[in-house]
Amino acid sequence: MQDTLPSLPRRHLLAGTAGALAAAGLGTWSQAAAAQTQAAAKPLPAYAAWKSDSSLIVHSSNTLETRRSAFGSSVITPSEQLYVRNNLPPPDAAVLADRDAWVLTIEGVQHPRDLTLGQLKSLGLETVATVLQCSGNGRGFFPSKPSGTPWTVGAAGCVMWSGVPLRRVAEALGGVADGMAYITGTGGEKLPEGIDPKSIVVERSVPLKALEDALLAWEMNGAPIPLAHGGPLRLIVPGYQGVNNIKYVKRLAFTASESQAKIMSHGYRVTPPGAKADPSQPSVLEMSVKSWINSPHADGAPLTAGMVQIHGVAFGGTEAVKRVEVSTDGGKTWREARFVGPDLGKFAWRQFALTAELPAGTHLLASRATDAAGNVQPEARVENVGGYNNTSWRDHAVQVTVA
Amino acid sequence: MQDTLPSLPRRHLLAGTAGALAAAGLGTWSQAAAAQTQAAAKPLPAYAAWKSDSSLIVHSSNTLETRRSAFGSSVITPSEQLYVRNNLPPPDAAVLADRDAWVLTIEGVQHPRDLTLGQLKSLGLETVATVLQCSGNGRGFFPSKPSGTPWTVGAAGCVMWSGVPLRRVAEALGGVADGMAYITGTGGEKLPEGIDPKSIVVERSVPLKALEDALLAWEMNGAPIPLAHGGPLRLIVPGYQGVNNIKYVKRLAFTASESQAKIMSHGYRVTPPGAKADPSQPSVLEMSVKSWINSPHADGAPLTAGMVQIHGVAFGGTEAVKRVEVSTDGGKTWREARFVGPDLGKFAWRQFALTAELPAGTHLLASRATDAAGNVQPEARVENVGGYNNTSWRDHAVQVTVA
Repeated sequence: MQDTLPSLPRRHLLAGTAGALAAAGLGTWSQAAAAQTQAAAKPLPAYAAWKSDSSLIVHSSNTLETRRSAFGSSVITPSEQLYVRNNLPPPDAAVLADRDAWVLTIEGVQHPRDLTLGQLKSLGLETVATVLQCSGNGRGFFPSKPSGTPWTVGAAGCVMWSGVPLRRVAEALGGVADGMAYITGTGGEKLPEGIDPKSIVVERSVPLKALEDALLAWEMNGAPIPLAHGGPLRLIVPGYQGVNNIKYVKRLAFTASESQAKIMSHGYRVTPPGAKADPSQPSVLEMSVKSWINSPHADGAPLTAGMVQIHGVAFGGTEAVKRVEVSTDGGKTWREARFVGPDLGKFAWRQFALTAELPAGTHLLASRATDAAGNVQPEARVENVGGYNNTSWRDHAVQVTVA
Repeated sequence: MQDTLPSLPRRHLLAGTAGALAAAGLGTWSQAAAAQTQAAAKPLPAYAAWKSDSSLIVHSSNTLETRRSAFGSSVITPSEQLYVRNNLPPPDAAVLADRDAWVLTIEGVQHPRDLTLGQLKSLGLETVATVLQCSGNGRGFFPSKPSGTPWTVGAAGCVMWSGVPLRRVAEALGGVADGMAYITGTGGEKLPEGIDPKSIVVERSVPLKALEDALLAWEMNGAPIPLAHGGPLRLIVPGYQGVNNIKYVKRLAFTASESQAKIMSHGYRVTPPGAKADPSQPSVLEMSVKSWINSPHADGAPLTAGMVQIHGVAFGGTEAVKRVEVSTDGGKTWREARFVGPDLGKFAWRQFALTAELPAGTHLLASRATDAAGNVQPEARVENVGGYNNTSWRDHAVQVTVA
């Protein structure tokens, strides 16, 4: 544990009772609890009925967002609080009846074949913590109101995955076939009848370099992966936007070119304002450096003037996050925050905190992260039709009122 | 992620179908799932009804044990799977209605006073992962059948806590008063009427040196601490046996001597066989180096001959765990296991794994950990009346049958 907390001002030490202490200006921090007791407006869908409804905003049956007030400070996001974004409804829960019997078809290796999950488990074991984030997280801050779910900060979490490194599986099957440049994963959702499968299938390609860290995961946060999060088997591509982490993965192919599925060719493209999506535009792949403050937050009760622990999360995508600065004046001045809690590796987020004295008034709290490569979280978002990749520190700032 | 996995034997690479691959000897690993579907024999108590009953053995309403088969490989133990051991029934759930209003009385500092949880939250923030383990974990392996719950391995978990460092609170109140040698925490359980409080109160003392790492925690695994685990406020003493981590802590006193409560003076003493407990015997304080294998395990389906990932957990108490060896022949020979997943700090456990080829037959699998100070997990338990502190690697070995 770190010992970098500043000393309390002397005046906090002298009052004789708890009441006097409060009068002397020690802020309270009850907003999270208050917000957590707000009931969700819509009910949770059946496949996610086990989740914490007070922690989630139900946008639709396929889009559940973690409330900003529900993010704690324990680094890992509990499964019950983790967001859900499905491009298609999940398969029938019957696929979990015998998890080890799930079959993955592997192509684009020297010896292509099917492997059951039971067989995959014998090939290796690794555990990695990653930020799982929808590329549309922060879309709700775009004034252009892009179509799609208006997520603010809650389409993200930090999750512990266990599985077999994909490179171990490729090695066991003789290695990646010559000429392959992509890892293409196909989801096991049931496709609607009477429609071109390519127009609807969840199939994404990531560059072959992702093989270094990719995992075929069967466990999430200490339990078999729930259906809502892609169990029995999910492709995890650490550092990449959520859509690339294929749920219910049934086919894993090393391919020479990107998938022709619409979700790859035209979906999730970073399309300039006014343009139409096309495959020449960047896809949502690696995440970029980003941070936001979770406490205090705007939808809580007014703060009392005094000391407060400002805290939030920061991550660097495929780079470790190195530094976080916090501003209490909307970005005019910045102070370096401290990291709180264990470092779970470069693909995880880190909790940061800054002890600040907030006087009565309105304050705009912002955070700005820097990754190990020196990339600094920008002030402005990059406008695009789909509302992807919003890392703007200004958009993520929180206005709080102190009584 | 590590890249220390051995290559697959060549014979695994040649077969052309999944069936042939299985025939070639890739072991499967389905026991955990099978065991997890076994229903608990007794129902969960109301205060813990939110827990995963398939993951727990219900010994009594105050003693719930995690099944060996339910421990995954994701380092952190999910709250739904975490064991419970209460010395008294928890207080009424009404204590959680306004968590920030919970009052802690602090004594033995220069300026003793009451502080609310809301005030504590303004004083600091730290997050630490610790092994939480009942000192009686492993009691079930004692042939002497000590009284008390016959835990085997499941009265333990690795948990992420957030709270304020106790030393920050002491500093804010002028520092620890002169002459104090212990940190004494008192639980907020309701005591039965008509009985000497000292005979029943949950009050424990730990040496003052524990101040370096102790935490007053309000969050566990990313959510406010549930009642079952000591919410709204729990004293966490990293590296110390579970009983020292006082739930619903209502009084925190720096004291010149140990508590006179019976749970301290006579309870949880390491009493030699045939003797009676007395305060001169060692109390259960720091944990010692320990490990065990969670998979494969004895209560699963028979394994198929071939490769298997043997994995488990290892920790060093107040020292980091440095090394784990695994034996597949009951301790005759040992191989060094690899660590799996992130290092959450010296108070957390680490997952270890060894890739082994198990032929048909019966095998006794054992693990033996070494901590950073060079202490090696012993072969034999230390006999004592209460069945405490069992770290014997032989007791924790797992016999498996391979078809």
